[in-house]
Amino acid sequence: MSEKRAVILLSGGLDSATVLAMARAEGYACYTMSFDYGQRHRAELQAAERVAHQLGALEHKVVGINLNGIGGSALTDSTIAVPEEPAEGIPVTYVPARNTLFLSLALGWAEVLGAHDIFIGVNAVDYSGYPDCRPEFIDAFERLANLATKAGVEGEGFRIRAPLQYLSKAQIIQAGLARGVEYGLTVSCYQADADGRACGRCDSCRLRAEGFRAAGMVDPTRYF
Amino acid sequence: MSEKRAVILLSGGLDSATVLAMARAEGYACYTMSFDYGQRHRAELQAAERVAHQLGALEHKVVGINLNGIGGSALTDSTIAVPEEPAEGIPVTYVPARNTLFLSLALGWAEVLGAHDIFIGVNAVDYSGYPDCRPEFIDAFERLANLATKAGVEGEGFRIRAPLQYLSKAQIIQAGLARGVEYGLTVSCYQADADGRACGRCDSCRLRAEGFRAAGMVDPTRYF
Repeated sequence: MSEKRAVILLSGGLDSATVLAMARAEGYACYTMSFDYGQRHRAELQAAERVAHQLGALEHKVVGINLNGIGGSALTDSTIAVPEEPAEGIPVTYVPARNTLFLSLALGWAEVLGAHDIFIGVNAVDYSGYPDCRPEFIDAFERLANLATKAGVEGEGFRIRAPLQYLSKAQIIQAGLARGVEYGLTVSCYQADADGRACGRCDSCRLRAEGFRAAGMVDPTRYF
Repeated sequence: MSEKRAVILLSGGLDSATVLAMARAEGYACYTMSFDYGQRHRAELQAAERVAHQLGALEHKVVGINLNGIGGSALTDSTIAVPEEPAEGIPVTYVPARNTLFLSLALGWAEVLGAHDIFIGVNAVDYSGYPDCRPEFIDAFERLANLATKAGVEGEGFRIRAPLQYLSKAQIIQAGLARGVEYGLTVSCYQADADGRACGRCDSCRLRAEGFRAAGMVDPTRYF
């Protein structure tokens, strides 16, 4: 095939929308993937679909994963409260092995599509302290991907692209605005309501608001 | 917690049943995990449940994954025929990124359970040529697991155990029989019928029959 294909992990939040716009600007034919794994903030799934459409993804796939009560995170277990104050160490919103799982599914789809690039919006600067957002994790997954697959062993292999890795939230927002992202379509809040309105108090809301402030831009987020 | 916990990937086939028996014999409290991902040979899922019960697993979890038409394998795509003759290279029964995906889910559950050992029945001797069954893949996943998780970064971390790695099928069968596996409960066939009866012709059936022959044992498999 002549077109250069990429799979983009799309959460419906600000970061992954920016990544999709970056991949498009690099000339990739973009295939976006979201996950329905019982997360609390389901407004994200609708946001992901809107963002995929607005930014010209060729196909948007939602993979359903029934974790059957594995739990272990404030984002999937309704008995654990979403914290509204910064905490030390890895926070309770950490979902065990989440990015490993998401990248595995993206890898499977990429192999079927004949895509060699997988984009993920992890970030090592303004982030929440998750271990699976660090550069060493991304490098280890890329290495794994090229050992795990037919395309890795017999073909061109895979690159895991994390273009936001070393950008501040303000730089991410500026990069996205320059590439046509409509941030009003995105939802960042860990406990957004059904209409996608944000709490303004969780970690994710705080990082987003600070990013827009630092970028000197107005955040179109609606709050409940 | 004082008990030593392990998560065991259980497919319902011969190899993973043997692995469960080995983990039990080592004194682990065993938590077994199967996947419902639209595989053709659904009799495997019932077999996994029977095996988990027979071999004393404390909990058996089935994770549902709706791959939504990602396909790409004769095992999940009904338009690709299961081959009945040996082929060169990686066969069409290869499922893109399957073991990466399964280990990711096992890793998430292990972290929630406080388990440090994940057992998988991959084998580098009598195997079907899948890249994600090789020792270098298992090593790369272990490395990833310890970068990807809270338990890997802050705690004792994870070991990916592949005790069948260097055993022949005959040795696997002997090891399992010595540890009480009832192989009549297991289903190996890629196209087993709803009652768990095997075709006797696919790669997996062939490897199994040869293993029992080499071990000098009678295979309790029922054929259709």
